Formats: sequence, C-alpha cells, structure tokens
Amino acid sequence: MGLLAAGIGAGIVALGAGLGIGMIGKAATESIARQPEASGDIRGAMILTAAFIEGVALLGAVICILLALGIGQ
Amino acid sequence: MGLLAAGIGAGIVALGAGLGIGMIGKAATESIARQPEASGDIRGAMILTAAFIEGVALLGAVICILLALGIGQ
Amino acid sequence: MGLLAAGIGAGIVALGAGLGIGMIGKAATESIARQPEASGDIRGAMILTAAFIEGVALLGAVICILLALGIGQ
Amino acid sequence: MGLLAAGIGAGIVALGAGLGIGMIGKAATESIARQPEASGDIRGAMILTAAFIEGVALLGAVICILLALGIGQ
Amino acid sequence: MGLLAAGIGAGIVALGAGLGIGMIGKAATESIARQPEASGDIRGAMILTAAFIEGVALLGAVICILLALGIGQ
Amino acid sequence: MGLLAAGIGAGIVALGAGLGIGMIGKAATESIARQPEASGDIRGAMILTAAFIEGVALLGAVICILLALGIGQ
Amino acid sequence: MGLLAAGIGAGIVALGAGLGIGMIGKAATESIARQPEASGDIRGAMILTAAFIEGVALLGAVICILLALGIGQ
Amino acid sequence: MGLLAAGIGAGIVALGAGLGIGMIGKAATESIARQPEASGDIRGAMILTAAFIEGVALLGAVICILLALGIGQ
Amino acid sequence: MGLLAAGIGAGIVALGAGLGIGMIGKAATESIARQPEASGDIRGAMILTAAFIEGVALLGAVICILLALGIGQ
Amino acid sequence: MGLLAAGIGAGIVALGAGLGIGMIGKAATESIARQPEASGDIRGAMILTAAFIEGVALLGAVICILLALGIGQ
Amino acid sequence: MGLLAAGIGAGIVALGAGLGIGMIGKAATESIARQPEASGDIRGAMILTAAFIEGVALLGAVICILLALGIGQ
Amino acid sequence: MGLLAAGIGAGIVALGAGLGIGMIGKAATESIARQPEASGDIRGAMILTAAFIEGVALLGAVICILLALGIGQ
Amino acid sequence: MGLLAAGIGAGIVALGAGLGIGMIGKAATESIARQPEASGDIRGAMILTAAFIEGVALLGAVICILLALGIGQ
Amino acid sequence: MGLLAAGIGAGIVALGAGLGIGMIGKAATESIARQPEASGDIRGAMILTAAFIEGVALLGAVICILLALGIGQ
Repeated sequence: MGLLAAGIGAGIVALGAGLGIGMIGKAATESIARQPEASGDIRGAMILTAAFIEGVALLGAVICILLALGIGQ
Repeated sequence: MGLLAAGIGAGIVALGAGLGIGMIGKAATESIARQPEASGDIRGAMILTAAFIEGVALLGAVICILLALGIGQ
Repeated sequence: MGLLAAGIGAGIVALGAGLGIGMIGKAATESIARQPEASGDIRGAMILTAAFIEGVALLGAVICILLALGIGQ
Repeated sequence: MGLLAAGIGAGIVALGAGLGIGMIGKAATESIARQPEASGDIRGAMILTAAFIEGVALLGAVICILLALGIGQ
Repeated sequence: MGLLAAGIGAGIVALGAGLGIGMIGKAATESIARQPEASGDIRGAMILTAAFIEGVALLGAVICILLALGIGQ
Repeated sequence: MGLLAAGIGAGIVALGAGLGIGMIGKAATESIARQPEASGDIRGAMILTAAFIEGVALLGAVICILLALGIGQ
Repeated sequence: MGLLAAGIGAGIVALGAGLGIGMIGKAATESIARQPEASGDIRGAMILTAAFIEGVALLGAVICILLALGIGQ
Repeated sequence: MGLLAAGIGAGIVALGAGLGIGMIGKAATESIARQPEASGDIRGAMILTAAFIEGVALLGAVICILLALGIGQ
Repeated sequence: MGLLAAGIGAGIVALGAGLGIGMIGKAATESIARQPEASGDIRGAMILTAAFIEGVALLGAVICILLALGIGQ
Repeated sequence: MGLLAAGIGAGIVALGAGLGIGMIGKAATESIARQPEASGDIRGAMILTAAFIEGVALLGAVICILLALGIGQ
Repeated sequence: MGLLAAGIGAGIVALGAGLGIGMIGKAATESIARQPEASGDIRGAMILTAAFIEGVALLGAVICILLALGIGQ
Repeated sequence: MGLLAAGIGAGIVALGAGLGIGMIGKAATESIARQPEASGDIRGAMILTAAFIEGVALLGAVICILLALGIGQ
Repeated sequence: MGLLAAGIGAGIVALGAGLGIGMIGKAATESIARQPEASGDIRGAMILTAAFIEGVALLGAVICILLALGIGQ
Repeated sequence: MGLLAAGIGAGIVALGAGLGIGMIGKAATESIARQPEASGDIRGAMILTAAFIEGVALLGAVICILLALGIGQ
C-alpha cells in the first residue's frame, strides 16, 4: 500500500508543481515582455510564489520517499 | 490504508497548493507589469492570500505525515 | 477506513481552499492594479470571502484530524 | 463506511464552498475595483450569496461530523 | 451503505449549491457594478434563482440526514 | 444498494439543478443589468426554464426519497 | 442493482436536463435583453428545444421509476 | 446487470440529448435575436439537427427500456 | 456483461452524437443568421457532416441492440 | 469480457467520431458563411479530414462487431 | 483481458484520432476561408499532420485487432 | 494484465499523439493562412515538434506491441 | 502488475509529452508567423523547452520498458 | 504494488512536467515574438521556472525508479 501510494503520490505532486509553477512562469515571461523595465519586481514575485509551491511539493515528495523506503511503517 | 492515504493525500495537497498559489502568482506578476507603482499593495495581497492557502496545505501535509509515520493509529 | 479518509479528505480540503482562495487572490491583485485607490475596500472583500472559505476548510481539516487520530470511533 | 464518508465528504464540501465563494469573491473584488461607489450594494449581494453557500456547506459539514463521531449509527 | 452515501452525497450537494449560487452571486455583483440603479431588479432575480437551488440542495441534504441517522432503513 | 443510490443520486440531482439554474440566474441578472426595461420578459423566460429544470430535479429527488425510505423494494 | 441504477440514473438525468435547459435559458434571457422586440420568436424556439430535452429526460426518469419500484424485473 | 445498465444508460442518454439540443437551442435563440428576419431558415436548421439527436437518443432510450423490462434476455 | 455494455454503450453513443451534431447545429444556425443568402451551402455542409456522425452512431446503436437482445453470444 | 468491450468501445468510437467530425462541421459551416465563394475548397478539406476520422472510426466499429459476434475468440 | 482491451482501446484510439484530426480540419477550413489563395500550402500542412496522427492511430488499431483475434497470446 | 495494458495503453498513446499533433497542425495551418510568406519556417517548426511527439508515441506503441505479443514476460 | 503499469504508464507518458510539446509547437508556429525575423530566438526557446519535456518523457518511457521486460523485479 | 505505482507514477510525472514546461515554453516563444529585444530576461525567467519543475519531476522519477527496481522494499 505504501509503495503504491509513493509512486502515484509522487506523480500527483509533480503534476501540482508543474501546473502551478507553469502558470507562474507563463505569466512572468509574458509580463517581462510587456513591461521589461519592471523585470526586477516581477522576478521577485515569481520566485516568491514559486518557492511557496516548491516548498509544499518537496514536503510531499519527502513523504513519498518515506513511504517508498518503508520508513515509519 | 493510512499509508495509501498519506501518499495520495500529499499529492492532492500539493496539487491544491500548486493551482491556488499558481493562480495568485500569475495574477501578481501580470498586475505588477501593468501597474508597477502599486507593487507594494499587490505584493501584500499576494502574500496574504498565498499564506491562507499555505496554511491549509501545511495542515494537510502534517496530517499526511502523521499517517505516514503511523502516529495515532 | 478512517485513515484512508483522513488523508484523501485532507487533500481535497486543501484543493478546495487552494482553488477558492486562489481565485480571490487572483482577482484582488488584478483589481488593486486596476484601481489602486480602492485597495482598502478590495482588501476588505478579499479577506471576508477568504475567511468564509478558510472557515469551512479548517472545519474539514479538523474532521480529518479527528479521523487520523482515531477520536470518536 | 461512515468514517470513509466523513473524510471524503468533508473534502468535497470544502471544495464546493471554496469554488462557490471563490467565484463570488473574485467577482466582488473586481466589481468594487470597477465601480467603487457601489461597494455597499456589491458587498450586500456578496455576503447574501456567500451565506447561502456557507449554510449548505456547514450543514454538509455537520453531517460529516455526525458520521465521524459515529452518532446515529 | 447508507452512511457512505450520506457523506459523499452531502459533499456533492454542497458542491452543486456552491457552483450554482456562486455563478449567480458572481453575475449579480458584476451586474450591480455595471448598472447600480437596477440593483433592486437584479437582487430580486438573484434571490429567486438562488432560492430554487437552495430548495433542491436542502432537500438533498435532508435525504442525507435521513441516511446518516438511519431513519427509514 | 438503494441507500447508496439515494445519497449519491440526491447529490447529483442537486449538482444538475445547481449548474442549470445557476447558468440561468447568471444570464438573467446580467441581462437585466444590460436592458432594465425588458426585465418583465426576462424574468418570464427565467422562471419558465428554471421551472423545467426544477421539475426534473424534484422528480429525481422524489425517486431518491423513495429509495431512502425503502418504498417499493 | 436496479435500485442502485435508479438513484444514480435519476441524478444523471437531472444533470443532463439541468445543463441543457440551463444553456437554453441562459441564451434566451440574453437574447431577449439584446432584442426585446423578437421575444415571441425567441420564446418559441426556447420552448421547442427545451421540450425536446424535457421529453428525453422524463422518459429517462420514467425508466428510473420503473427500476425503483421493481416493475418488470 | 441489465437493470444497472438501464438506469445509468438512460441517464447518459439524457445527458447527451441535453447537452446537444441545449447547444442548438442556445445558438438558435441567439441567432434569432441577431437576425430576426431569417428566423424561418434558422428554425428549420434547428429542428433538423435536433431531430437527428432526438432520433439517436430515443433509440438509446428504447434499448434501456428493453433492458429495464428484461426483454430479450 | 453484454447487457451492461448495451445500456452504457447506448448512452455514450447518444452522448457522442449529441455533442457532435449539437456543435454542427449550433454553428449552422449561427452561420445562417450571419449570412442568410448562403443558407443552401451551409445546409448542405451541415447535413453532410451530421450524416457522417449519424452513420457511426447508428452503427454503434446497432451493436448495442445486438448485445441487448443476446444475438451472437 | 468481449461483450462488455464491444458495447463500451462502440460508444467511445461514436464519441470520438462525433466530437471530431462535429468540430470539422462546425468550422466548415462557419467558414462558408464567412467566405461563400471559397465553398468548394472548404468542402474539399472538410470531406478529406472527415474521411480520415470516419476511416479510423469504422475500423474501430468493425473491431467491436468482431467482439460482439464472438469472432476470433 | 485481451478482448476487453481490444474494444476499449479501439474506442480511445478513435477518440484520439477524432479529436486530433478534428482540430486540424477545423483550423484548415477556417484558414482557407480566411486566405483562399494559400489553400495549397494549407492543404499540404493539413495532410502532413493528419497523416502523422493517422499513422499512430492505425498502429494502435492494429494492436487492438491483434488482441481481438487472439494473435500472440 | 499485459494484454489489458497493451490495448488501453495503445489507445492513450494515440490520444496523446492526436491531441499534441492536432494542436500543432491547427496552429500551423492558421499561421500559414496569416503569414503565407513565412510558410517555410513554419513548416520547419511544425515538423520538428511533431517529430518529437511522434518519437515518444512510437516508443510507447512499441512497448504496447511488446506487451501484446508477450515478449519479455 | 508491472505489465499493466508498463502499458498504461507508456500511454500517459505519451499523453504528457504530446500535450506539452504540442502547446510549445503551437505557440512557436504562431510566433514565427507573427514575427518572422525573430525565428532564430523562437526556435531556440522552442527546442530548449521541448528538450526538457522530452527528457522527462524518455526517462518515464525507460521506466516502462524496464517494467515491460521484467528487469529489476 | 510497487511496480504498478512505478509505471503509473512515471506517467503522471511526465504529464505534470509536460503540461507545466509546455505552458512556460508556449509563453516564452510568444513573448519573444512580441518583444524580441527582451529575449535575454525572458529566457532567464523561462529557464528558472522550468528548472523548478524539472527538479520536482526528476525527484518524482527517481522515486519511480526506486520502486521499479525494488530498492528499499
């Protein structure tokens, strides 16, 4: 059960991170193209929100590694 | 059962956080590009709502860690 | 059964809160960018509706914690 | 069975409340930005419809609590 | 079986009510912002259709309560 | 089986009624905002189509009540 | 089996009728708002297509009633 | 098995007919509002395509009635 | 098994035909409204593509009737 | 198993053909309305791509007939 | 198992080919309507990409025929 | 198991290739219509990305053929 | 289990690669049509991101080949 | 179980990476076409966010390789 969960969970984690950071990256590149002189502020907001998502995603990935290696069962 | 739930739950938590914060980050970068002089207010609203989501997501992740480590069973 | 429900339920709760507060945060940052002088009213409406969602989400998370810790079974 | 239903049901309740109130909050913040002088009427309609949803959602959450605590089985 | 149905059914009921009333509330706040002087008519149509949905949703919730409390089995 | 069907069926009935009447209510409020002097005709069409949906939804809900109370088994 | 099918089938029937008549009602109210003097023709087309859907939906609901009451098994 | 199929099949048939005729009715009412003098041609095309869908849907419903009444088993 | 397949298959066939012919009917009515003098050509293309779909759908329905009546088992 | 596959497969084949040819028919009727003098070229491209889809769909339907009649088992 | 896979696989293959070639055919007919004098280039690109999809789809259909006829088991 | 996977996998492979190459072909035909003199560059990018997808899809199809013929079990 | 996973996994890998590279190819062809003189930069970004996706997809496909050939079990 | 998870997980990982990086690549190519002189900044943001996604995806793929090779069971 833990093994099944580890693989599928890792997949959904990557799906979540991909969709979320993908939306941010999409908006950031379009925003820089529209307003190149504000690229510092935009990059700041981009990294900040991407880091929020990355944090949750890595936490989820760590849970999946725990399950894959059978730690805590 | 708890192990299965831990992995899939962690995945859906990351999916939720990714979609939610992704939408916020997308809007924030586009808003800063459109109105660079209001970037303080925008960053404030961005962090506030992202923190609301982050809070629920971390709470969900903690539940999944409890399940993965078999605490409370 | 309760453990399975706790994990998946926590995931869907975070998904709901993420999508809902994400939409609000997206609209709020875009609205502040469009009308910076109304940012007080906008922030008020944003926090009010986000709190409605947060309330239901935390209630759902508490149910999941009850299930994860086996209280009331 | 009741425990499984409690967790997943609580999740879907939060998803419904999140999507519904999220749409309302999104529209309300955008409307206030577009017409700041009508913010009283807008806030009234916002709270009224959000309360309709909140009512059904809390009713659903109460059913889930009944199930989680094993009342009425 | 009845308990499983009660929880998941209550969740879907709340999802339906949330999406439906959310769409109405979204349109109503936007309409008031666009035409503040017609806010009486708009509020009337808003409450009427929201009440239609609320009626079906409460009926569905009552069925779920019947199932959760084991009445009529 | 009948109990399971009663709960989930009631949920989907409410979902269908919510989405359908929600679309109508959304269009009606927006239409009144755009053309306030035609609000009589609009309200007529709104109630007529909402009643069509309400009729099918109540019929579906009655079937679910039959199942929940075990009539006709 | 017939009971399970009756409930879920009734739900999907209501979902189909709700979405279909909802789209028609949405378009009809918007059309009347845009062209009030053609409201007779619009109402005619609206009722005609809604009746097509209503017919199939009622036929489906009758099948579900047959199943719920155990006729023809 | 036949009973299960009869109910769910009837539901999906109504869903298909609802979505299809709903799209046609939506377009027809909007088209009449845009071009009232072509309402004869529009009504012709509307009825013709709706009848195509109605034909397949009724054929599907008849199959479901066969299954519900246990004919041909 | 054949009976289960007959009902659900008939439903999906009707869904496919409904969505496909619905899109065609939607476009045809809108096209006639935009260009009434080309209604002959439009009607020709409409019937031709609708007939393609109708052909596959009827073939699928015939397979479902074969299954429902137990021919070829 | 083959019978189950025959029915559901035939349904999905009709769904695919319906969606695909529906998109083509939609575009073709709209294109003829926009550019009536190019209706020959448009009809050619329409029939060519519809035939590609029809070919795969009929091949899929033939596989389903093989399964329904139990040939090759 | 092979028979079940053959039918459902053939259905999804036809769905994929239908959606893909449908999008291409839709774009091609619209493009010819917008730029009739480039219809040679457009038809070339249309046939080239449709052939790519057709190739994969026919390969998938051949796999399904292998499974339906029990070759290689 | 391998046979079941071969059929369904082949279907999803064709779905992926169809959607992906369909999007590319759609964009390419529209782009040529908008900018006929850049059709060489457009065709180059079209073939390059379509080949990337075709490569993965054929690799997936080969895996399915391996499974269908029972090689490597 | 490994065989089942190999086929379905290969299908989803191809779906992911198809959707991702399809979006990139769609944007690239449209961008070249809009700005032919920047086609070098565009082709560079196109190949770079397509290679990122191709890398993950090939890694996923290799995992599926490992499973299909029973290596590492 | 681990083998099943490895294949499906690898597929969902590739799906997530494909959708995410696809959105970024789409936006980047369009942005370069709109603002060629800002292509350095755009390429920087593109690679940064694509690397965030690639990192989570490779981590997920490594978990799937661990499961496929049976390490840590």
